[in-house]
Amino acid sequence: MAALNPENPVFVTYAIAAALMVLKVMGQGWMTVYRMMKSDSGLASPEDLQAGPLNRTPRPGQLELNDYVDRSRRMHRNDLENIPAFWAAGLVFVTVEPPLLLAQTLMYGFVLARLAHAVAYITKQMHEVRATFYTIGSLAVIVMALYVLAAIIF
Amino acid sequence: MAALNPENPVFVTYAIAAALMVLKVMGQGWMTVYRMMKSDSGLASPEDLQAGPLNRTPRPGQLELNDYVDRSRRMHRNDLENIPAFWAAGLVFVTVEPPLLLAQTLMYGFVLARLAHAVAYITKQMHEVRATFYTIGSLAVIVMALYVLAAIIF
Amino acid sequence: MAALNPENPVFVTYAIAAALMVLKVMGQGWMTVYRMMKSDSGLASPEDLQAGPLNRTPRPGQLELNDYVDRSRRMHRNDLENIPAFWAAGLVFVTVEPPLLLAQTLMYGFVLARLAHAVAYITKQMHEVRATFYTIGSLAVIVMALYVLAAIIF
Repeated sequence: MAALNPENPVFVTYAIAAALMVLKVMGQGWMTVYRMMKSDSGLASPEDLQAGPLNRTPRPGQLELNDYVDRSRRMHRNDLENIPAFWAAGLVFVTVEPPLLLAQTLMYGFVLARLAHAVAYITKQMHEVRATFYTIGSLAVIVMALYVLAAIIF
Repeated sequence: MAALNPENPVFVTYAIAAALMVLKVMGQGWMTVYRMMKSDSGLASPEDLQAGPLNRTPRPGQLELNDYVDRSRRMHRNDLENIPAFWAAGLVFVTVEPPLLLAQTLMYGFVLARLAHAVAYITKQMHEVRATFYTIGSLAVIVMALYVLAAIIF
Repeated sequence: MAALNPENPVFVTYAIAAALMVLKVMGQGWMTVYRMMKSDSGLASPEDLQAGPLNRTPRPGQLELNDYVDRSRRMHRNDLENIPAFWAAGLVFVTVEPPLLLAQTLMYGFVLARLAHAVAYITKQMHEVRATFYTIGSLAVIVMALYVLAAIIF
């Protein structure tokens, strides 16, 4: 039986976690848009200095780095350094038929760690807090990749 | 029957859209290379200042930001913020067996929106044009993720 | 028969290559952490200047760009511009049932090219060396995407 379908509880776990992480990544883009518009700064391209509905009162300096906006971009970058690897690792992990409890622990653990990482980043917690949640998420992905290699090679 | 095979028209839609987006992302890397070589600037690393086939006449300032080259890198970054999420969302979306017309609308809509976003970015259209296509693409991905969660949970 | 399962040798090839690339991407994050801690610089956020286990002796300038740390971030960025596209292209490539030898050549070729690219980047080889391995990896992904489109459309 093919493992990659919604009758397989391990795949259901993956599908839920993957979809939640899709919403996280896309939502991060919208947080950047919101912060750009609210602070009227942190724009990305020279042509964005033209007046228009997204920029009613152009002024010099709108292209400069602004921590309020850049924080959301850094969160986005951190997401991109972790979440696509989760999508790939999780998918091949499902196909080697791991125990359901292990899959739930690693996948929902990853989701919770990434959400906690985001909260720590937005609220400017000290580096150690953010690093702890980064580590948990990273290890979950690494364990899935190693499990796949072990299951296939041995 | 497994949904993830080329006998399923929804999967065929996904495979075409996913492959086109692969070409878009990889092509963006080549646009950066082309612009770097044409403008002889916007290099990435200190060692790139050595003379060689890719840099025949090294000069100071080649590592500085150059909008012609950086525009392609910003487009690439914007792709990375959207397209991998599409690959993941689209794949799990196929497994919950959505109507073909919905899948075609969301997936080909995403592809067209991203291509239009690229054209708007290259030709330096005002921010609102680029933002409109970004929004269409982003919503297509978000709808697929929400559809997956709804299909699995309810 | 579904192609995406470990009884299919082409899928096994994909799963091994995908898992190795997951470890590469996640490992790159840890190289950045290691270099940040070893050089005590290249921190990402203003709040990282607080004293704590990860930063025992805060000092001004720790947020400034540092090539030792930034090199690892550039490698990570280059990974993100190539590896997620490999995960997506490789997966749909498996479903159109390519010859095993072609799949092994493209997928293991991609893995080897990316590892060689990383070694060239860490050891600061001239631009042409890095560019050569980048090109091999990029072409492998492009070939897989074109093969998928050809197999499905014709």
